[in-house]
Amino acid sequence: MKRVYNFSPGPSVLPLPVLERAAAEMTDANGAGQSVMEMSHRSKDFKPIIEGAEALLRELMGIPPNYRVLFLQGGASLQFSMIPLNLASGEQAGPEAPGKKAVYIETGIWAKKAAAEAAKFVDVSVPASSKDRAYTYIPAAPAPEPGDAYYHITLNNTIVGTKWAGLPDTGPVPLAADISSCILSEPLEVAKFGVLYAGAQKNLGPAGLTVVIIREDLIGHAPSWVPALLRYDIHAGEGSMYNTPPCYGIYIMGLVLEWLKNLGGLPAITRLNQEKAGLFYRYLEQSRLFRSPVEKSCRSLMNIPFVCTEADPARREELETRFVKEAAAQGLVNLAGHRLVGGMRASIYNAMPIEGVRALIQFMEQFEKTNGK
Amino acid sequence: MKRVYNFSPGPSVLPLPVLERAAAEMTDANGAGQSVMEMSHRSKDFKPIIEGAEALLRELMGIPPNYRVLFLQGGASLQFSMIPLNLASGEQAGPEAPGKKAVYIETGIWAKKAAAEAAKFVDVSVPASSKDRAYTYIPAAPAPEPGDAYYHITLNNTIVGTKWAGLPDTGPVPLAADISSCILSEPLEVAKFGVLYAGAQKNLGPAGLTVVIIREDLIGHAPSWVPALLRYDIHAGEGSMYNTPPCYGIYIMGLVLEWLKNLGGLPAITRLNQEKAGLFYRYLEQSRLFRSPVEKSCRSLMNIPFVCTEADPARREELETRFVKEAAAQGLVNLAGHRLVGGMRASIYNAMPIEGVRALIQFMEQFEKTNGK
Repeated sequence: MKRVYNFSPGPSVLPLPVLERAAAEMTDANGAGQSVMEMSHRSKDFKPIIEGAEALLRELMGIPPNYRVLFLQGGASLQFSMIPLNLASGEQAGPEAPGKKAVYIETGIWAKKAAAEAAKFVDVSVPASSKDRAYTYIPAAPAPEPGDAYYHITLNNTIVGTKWAGLPDTGPVPLAADISSCILSEPLEVAKFGVLYAGAQKNLGPAGLTVVIIREDLIGHAPSWVPALLRYDIHAGEGSMYNTPPCYGIYIMGLVLEWLKNLGGLPAITRLNQEKAGLFYRYLEQSRLFRSPVEKSCRSLMNIPFVCTEADPARREELETRFVKEAAAQGLVNLAGHRLVGGMRASIYNAMPIEGVRALIQFMEQFEKTNGK
Repeated sequence: MKRVYNFSPGPSVLPLPVLERAAAEMTDANGAGQSVMEMSHRSKDFKPIIEGAEALLRELMGIPPNYRVLFLQGGASLQFSMIPLNLASGEQAGPEAPGKKAVYIETGIWAKKAAAEAAKFVDVSVPASSKDRAYTYIPAAPAPEPGDAYYHITLNNTIVGTKWAGLPDTGPVPLAADISSCILSEPLEVAKFGVLYAGAQKNLGPAGLTVVIIREDLIGHAPSWVPALLRYDIHAGEGSMYNTPPCYGIYIMGLVLEWLKNLGGLPAITRLNQEKAGLFYRYLEQSRLFRSPVEKSCRSLMNIPFVCTEADPARREELETRFVKEAAAQGLVNLAGHRLVGGMRASIYNAMPIEGVRALIQFMEQFEKTNGK
């Protein structure tokens, strides 16, 4: 079959040259006579792979030297627990032994889940939420109080398609951010954050790898009872090799980063992402059948939800279901919105070619014509 | 380069036909027009992959219907924490709030690490250890006390090359076992265990996937403060999809299981493993330069440590270092022993062809001749 245009929110499209190279190296990578999947993580064959991936990530993101880069497992969801456990929890866990206070801004379902997991270990404060309008905007972010342990935001909200246009000023309180669905999509001033984390399965590589970028002074504060696998100090001390890391994911991420560097790095991908998202939002603006539910000032470059303008709910649902099905038949796949919000969503990560966005718009124009608006 | 014979303890050799198929399907798997790495974990394309892998594992291992199979992340090391957290910990964690009592038999470095992690949450009892003779045997296992929460063993000890020849009788106390380095190497009566767990990177697939097989009645006992990602009830309730699972690892495991089934399943691989290990142990028995440090009654089928018989420590170390180096030059790689024990080790997992074992023996005979014994 011909390659599809895959608009999945994650796991998601990867650059074709990366896949082709992975295929070519599958039984013998870098002349080692073995697959990267077979390499001992402590071997001389794997060392340049993990070190090269970290060096490229540091270069592309401009990560300052006082930040550590960790390659972990468990997805962003495990970071929901690791951040409070490492930055703010007390010598006892459980409902009667809360840690310090931490701020969470509620901008969607993942932000809410992050706060819920943190509440198991710290005193969570949620001073702002956009729940009142189904998370379709980013609320004003109040300043933290001086003693707060950290301040957590979800920089890009995969499900609802919003992103923070600017960063909250948290002063000396460390800013922690989930950047799973926007890492390397446009420039980010790493030095403004205490901790950044991202599941790889959107802009970096396959599922099963999580990247954590953390300022050194925030490492080493976990109480003694925290499991070894959940401690930043252990992972940092062992160079992400306390136990076997997800080696193949790290290798694929390295190939993706090489692809991105050859493309021109962040400046080039930012232009391309703006062009892709711009095309799509402009199309939605003038469409009579489709519209974006998201406030203009905080629309995501990566995840673009859209709905049919049809007022009758039953007819709208029928239209939307048919749209997703007919699009898939044309090789435009995974366009259904998240099961919790419905509608449609096009995730157009770094690896989605502009031709894919054009093909989607063309199909939508056709669908609009056929469905009489 | 020609494929090497890779004796790594993990990540380790995979069947060549599996790698070749993965390469062929890299840009378009099962006619989906996308790589398995790109598939949404909730898509119709991925569903048969994860369901097929579980069905094959159940069939090959004979897993009874009252056991759940979970595909998790974090390696066996995260299970060191998840087992006490889910089976025996109390409503508070920390040094002053222990949970129930659990038994750990200390048969090596991994068994010791498992006990150390558990001690953060439960009252750990270690009634038997083989530390007195550098873990080169499996100690007699005392019966648990009736109220013990569980009884933990490491069925095959990767570093020291021992395995339990029989299972301890734990009565109604659930037996928990780390089977990372022996899963699917020979038959195992699953019904005798409460929980089995294995990192995939030895006999199943790439690093980053962990398989847990757990009796249903042991699920659902974690206290409320345990992180979502560390709860068996959450993972079981969501079919291992509470968050994005390590999809590509699950796919590769499915291919490995298919390969194993086509080979004749457990009866066939057991014969082959006995033949491979038999050849190697018989060679060691008659060698004047090499010997096995492990007690005969409990030698592993998968991991075979060996040392030089040379009495002078400096000369022995020189010989062993040269052996590992010269073997590598002949395409026999990763033969160094674990950094904590030294010497050499040949890990001969399911995917190591018997030709690899023969080539190693041949090289050892040659080395023995040249090095004058």
